[in-house]
Amino acid sequence: MIGNQIYNFLKELFPICRSIMGEGNRETLRLIQKHIPIKIHEVPTGYQAYDWEVPQEWQIRDAYILDPDGNKIVDFKENNLYVVNYSIAVDEEVELKELQKHLYSIPKKPSAIPYVTSYYEPRWGFCIADSQRQKLKDGKYKVYIDSSLKDGSLSYGELIIPGETEEEIFITTYICHPSMANNECSGPAVATFLAKWLLEEKRKYTYRIVFAPETIGAIVYISKNYDDLVNNVIAGFNITCVGDNNNYSLMPSRSGNTLADKVARHVMDNFADSYKEYSFLYKGSDERQYCHPRVDLPLVSLMRSKYGTYPEYHNSLDNLEYVSPEGLLGGFNINKICIEALEGNAIYENRFVCEPKMMKYNLRPKDWHLRRAGSKSNSRKYVRDMMNILFYCDGKHDLIELADRVELNFKDCHNYVKLLYNKGIIKKI
Amino acid sequence: MIGNQIYNFLKELFPICRSIMGEGNRETLRLIQKHIPIKIHEVPTGYQAYDWEVPQEWQIRDAYILDPDGNKIVDFKENNLYVVNYSIAVDEEVELKELQKHLYSIPKKPSAIPYVTSYYEPRWGFCIADSQRQKLKDGKYKVYIDSSLKDGSLSYGELIIPGETEEEIFITTYICHPSMANNECSGPAVATFLAKWLLEEKRKYTYRIVFAPETIGAIVYISKNYDDLVNNVIAGFNITCVGDNNNYSLMPSRSGNTLADKVARHVMDNFADSYKEYSFLYKGSDERQYCHPRVDLPLVSLMRSKYGTYPEYHNSLDNLEYVSPEGLLGGFNINKICIEALEGNAIYENRFVCEPKMMKYNLRPKDWHLRRAGSKSNSRKYVRDMMNILFYCDGKHDLIELADRVELNFKDCHNYVKLLYNKGIIKKI
Amino acid sequence: MIGNQIYNFLKELFPICRSIMGEGNRETLRLIQKHIPIKIHEVPTGYQAYDWEVPQEWQIRDAYILDPDGNKIVDFKENNLYVVNYSIAVDEEVELKELQKHLYSIPKKPSAIPYVTSYYEPRWGFCIADSQRQKLKDGKYKVYIDSSLKDGSLSYGELIIPGETEEEIFITTYICHPSMANNECSGPAVATFLAKWLLEEKRKYTYRIVFAPETIGAIVYISKNYDDLVNNVIAGFNITCVGDNNNYSLMPSRSGNTLADKVARHVMDNFADSYKEYSFLYKGSDERQYCHPRVDLPLVSLMRSKYGTYPEYHNSLDNLEYVSPEGLLGGFNINKICIEALEGNAIYENRFVCEPKMMKYNLRPKDWHLRRAGSKSNSRKYVRDMMNILFYCDGKHDLIELADRVELNFKDCHNYVKLLYNKGIIKKI
Repeated sequence: MIGNQIYNFLKELFPICRSIMGEGNRETLRLIQKHIPIKIHEVPTGYQAYDWEVPQEWQIRDAYILDPDGNKIVDFKENNLYVVNYSIAVDEEVELKELQKHLYSIPKKPSAIPYVTSYYEPRWGFCIADSQRQKLKDGKYKVYIDSSLKDGSLSYGELIIPGETEEEIFITTYICHPSMANNECSGPAVATFLAKWLLEEKRKYTYRIVFAPETIGAIVYISKNYDDLVNNVIAGFNITCVGDNNNYSLMPSRSGNTLADKVARHVMDNFADSYKEYSFLYKGSDERQYCHPRVDLPLVSLMRSKYGTYPEYHNSLDNLEYVSPEGLLGGFNINKICIEALEGNAIYENRFVCEPKMMKYNLRPKDWHLRRAGSKSNSRKYVRDMMNILFYCDGKHDLIELADRVELNFKDCHNYVKLLYNKGIIKKI
Repeated sequence: MIGNQIYNFLKELFPICRSIMGEGNRETLRLIQKHIPIKIHEVPTGYQAYDWEVPQEWQIRDAYILDPDGNKIVDFKENNLYVVNYSIAVDEEVELKELQKHLYSIPKKPSAIPYVTSYYEPRWGFCIADSQRQKLKDGKYKVYIDSSLKDGSLSYGELIIPGETEEEIFITTYICHPSMANNECSGPAVATFLAKWLLEEKRKYTYRIVFAPETIGAIVYISKNYDDLVNNVIAGFNITCVGDNNNYSLMPSRSGNTLADKVARHVMDNFADSYKEYSFLYKGSDERQYCHPRVDLPLVSLMRSKYGTYPEYHNSLDNLEYVSPEGLLGGFNINKICIEALEGNAIYENRFVCEPKMMKYNLRPKDWHLRRAGSKSNSRKYVRDMMNILFYCDGKHDLIELADRVELNFKDCHNYVKLLYNKGIIKKI
Repeated sequence: MIGNQIYNFLKELFPICRSIMGEGNRETLRLIQKHIPIKIHEVPTGYQAYDWEVPQEWQIRDAYILDPDGNKIVDFKENNLYVVNYSIAVDEEVELKELQKHLYSIPKKPSAIPYVTSYYEPRWGFCIADSQRQKLKDGKYKVYIDSSLKDGSLSYGELIIPGETEEEIFITTYICHPSMANNECSGPAVATFLAKWLLEEKRKYTYRIVFAPETIGAIVYISKNYDDLVNNVIAGFNITCVGDNNNYSLMPSRSGNTLADKVARHVMDNFADSYKEYSFLYKGSDERQYCHPRVDLPLVSLMRSKYGTYPEYHNSLDNLEYVSPEGLLGGFNINKICIEALEGNAIYENRFVCEPKMMKYNLRPKDWHLRRAGSKSNSRKYVRDMMNILFYCDGKHDLIELADRVELNFKDCHNYVKLLYNKGIIKKI
């Protein structure tokens, strides 16, 4: 059900022509606002963020190519990928040979329209399927792009959900790709529903949830929130590529050994059928900023197919058919379980010198000592798991380490711990 | 020879009907006393040890079942496993259907009488071979158990052998199973002979050797000796399941990285043909108390077949045929070598800046430099081993680490070290 | 070309009859002096170095055996291996049976003359091919060795090349084997050319280059330079067995985790097709002194075939055919690259909070953002490698660790680092 809700929201976000700045981004943020109370921030053209400057805003109204016979062979209104993102305006008639210099296609994927950007180099261009390109005949083509670059602002959305402590869990996703389903829309769609779920009740941690364009948006965000991020964030999650049905992927943090890595590996090991952990050398999303050495947040990405690794990546095949409600549900859950594990995480200590007498607390079946002759192995496992937990509730291991040590998943381990805690056998420290 | 001695002693212990308390335990301790001067302690019913209380003492005089034809089909005097340990008294005639509720058998092992206890839940019952159970006909059965529970005391034996230092090596074994050969009698039998051997000469360490019922006995013992145990014990060995001919098994300590673990692994690696190290998650004997987090002794078990893993475990097949003099000798030796290694363990330091001139000390064959043309590889290995020891006698590694580093077993390494020490080439620090 | 130069020099060194002391050693040092300005030190007979004493000097003028027919069957002037090194004088006629007691041969290698020494036990003897030995007929043999032992001095060469810092890189090789090509002459030949190369320009580190007889020479050298070695040497290389064409070998330092080990493994991993790392337990050259616990220099050996492991070792087959210009060039280069890596090694720190905008510095192709549609993977790897370096230039990892972390070899990594440094993006700390 939640998978369908996320998928439906993704369908709303999909057609919008986003870029690093512009009206598409604002429309995206306003759609998110219908679900969760994000605040929309605007940062003007010219704003300096470290080595970067917020550029002019791109506005695009229409774009097409007419072939020598006057047929509209490429139409922005049909698919916003047809135009190079941030393309400058053009209105000319050009020979095919000249046109070719401004066309982008992928010979190995003849049916796919590539996604191409040129944010910082003024350039006009069109992206088309290579199969279509091969059929173009000589002659004069009319090329028309009605776009403009002018001072404006970079937009990002932010939601702070205060918790019992000022320690923060940071959730970030990006809103700068146009009609790309897995590598974009799945991110804000899943992040929106994570936020909705977080808003359902009071949490231990404060949550900082950010929807910003990739790279420049993250850099701007860091420049405005450096101290809070560096001082408060105990774990972060970049929500990206969480929509297809393929195996899970994990991008660790820069050091690979933070609390976020620990929880992510535990959750992947226990709740994903299988997954691949990538080297941080193959980073590519906003961990490039949030994990840069002098920011160095404990931030990871728990994905389905990682960006850059699947054939539909960054072309028109990454569409509404490529993702699914089931895929999105999996992406949602794997991140949600990490957060639940962090919320429930704590260090406990056994109050007893020797084993407590478990029958006193109704924590052991009364016929336990008859077990040798035919009792169920389930009850043996139940008793063994509970006792193992007691042995490693030593005031030193947090619950994630404890679960790993006793070879249980966090949820099962947490259930035992709650039982033991409620009976007064262990205490929180 | 020593294997036979241990086996003969085990045969004396085997028929006694032990439990967690009672006359059988005292008889067992008195038999041990014929070999070593243990002190027998009595702890009265009602004594509080942490979360536990010493229960009433079980006394059993007779028990049997008469079938509808008056035949005695089950007779406690023939095999003490026939009665559920701590069974309350009964003297009734019951229909087969009612009797079945009080019978315990193992369908998968039709010839085995299971070992069943009910220490803390009042209950009467009989254990029989499943093959016998299947043949029972309808009719009235006479069930008779002449037992009683009354205030008494828990008995345990203790031997302290003072050494040169107050640091202790702790040896524990349990005396609460009735006629079980590997998983019980092998423990006190081997522990008794370890104690005899330890008494032969003055030792560096103080030895604390305890014979107590499992669980409640260990808990009581800890409650009375907590400070000594926690402050003095540098390594401990739980002597259990040391009697069969199967491969060796190691149960590590809770953390798995204490001195006891180090010596146990070295000895297993070098003196056992093969062995299996279990996870501490599969603990099951008195390490449950002695390794509980707030006791946390460096205690390990070096076993033959581990409890719970062999088909004869906890049933009448764990009998005098299942164990053997050879099996017991192996169990004795593997623990003895650990103790020898601990007694000989020390840190040495090479006195020389560069290599000493070994020929001066008669530590190198005179024709060493002719070795290239046909000398024996034995002498090469002898020289290489000795020189390797010199390189790692660096005042940092103890002898067990040294032996591991130079790829020798402790005994061979120790022999070289004694030679080097006697020549004044290395010193003890 | 450099391979040929080293080979030609090796050919000059090969015929000389070296030993631990004597005229052959001095001649060897004088030949080295033609290339590099070593200082020749003389240490007199009787000098005490720790547990050792410099012995008398061996002088040999002639040696032969005449068979019963008066044929000269063994002639020192033909091959200096025929005489046991440090053999005392003899001038006798002996029966074959008596002669056999003084002959050394290798039955398993019938054509090889073994290399045999007897430095500290007075003894006369000849080494011959086993095939020749088998043909000897009964009868009287004339044995003649014109040698003498008298007070003299042990000779070693030393070159100190001052650098910008007093921290030293230590290079040592030995000059005590007579006509042995790989296990001897390759060492001083390659070390000489390493020194020539080091003299070409000013270096960061001070270089200490020593040519001394093995064992006694190293011990004497340590006794005279203990404080400098122990206080200043940051990495050392024993140059030995660097001349054949076989796979590379690495002898680590005693602890195996020094700077020298780190650079050696990195260089072997990245610049050798394949190599074998030996255990320090199979040490055998001057690391026996320089890595002795109380000297404990961070010294390694990067070799071709390790001493003791190849059939030609320590016999007449380790000759000019066994080594080659290519083999020597490899041995030279693998050690040279280690030194280059140490010279270039430093810790750098990224100056930027978030990613710098690489296009500003011309460090990213202008069409980078068009890359999705058909750009070369080369440029992608170039950009990824450079960015990965930025992420681990965190002020904590030196360049060797950095190269390992970003999966580049030191040279490529260093080139990127120099680029980033010259652009002011990273700083040295």
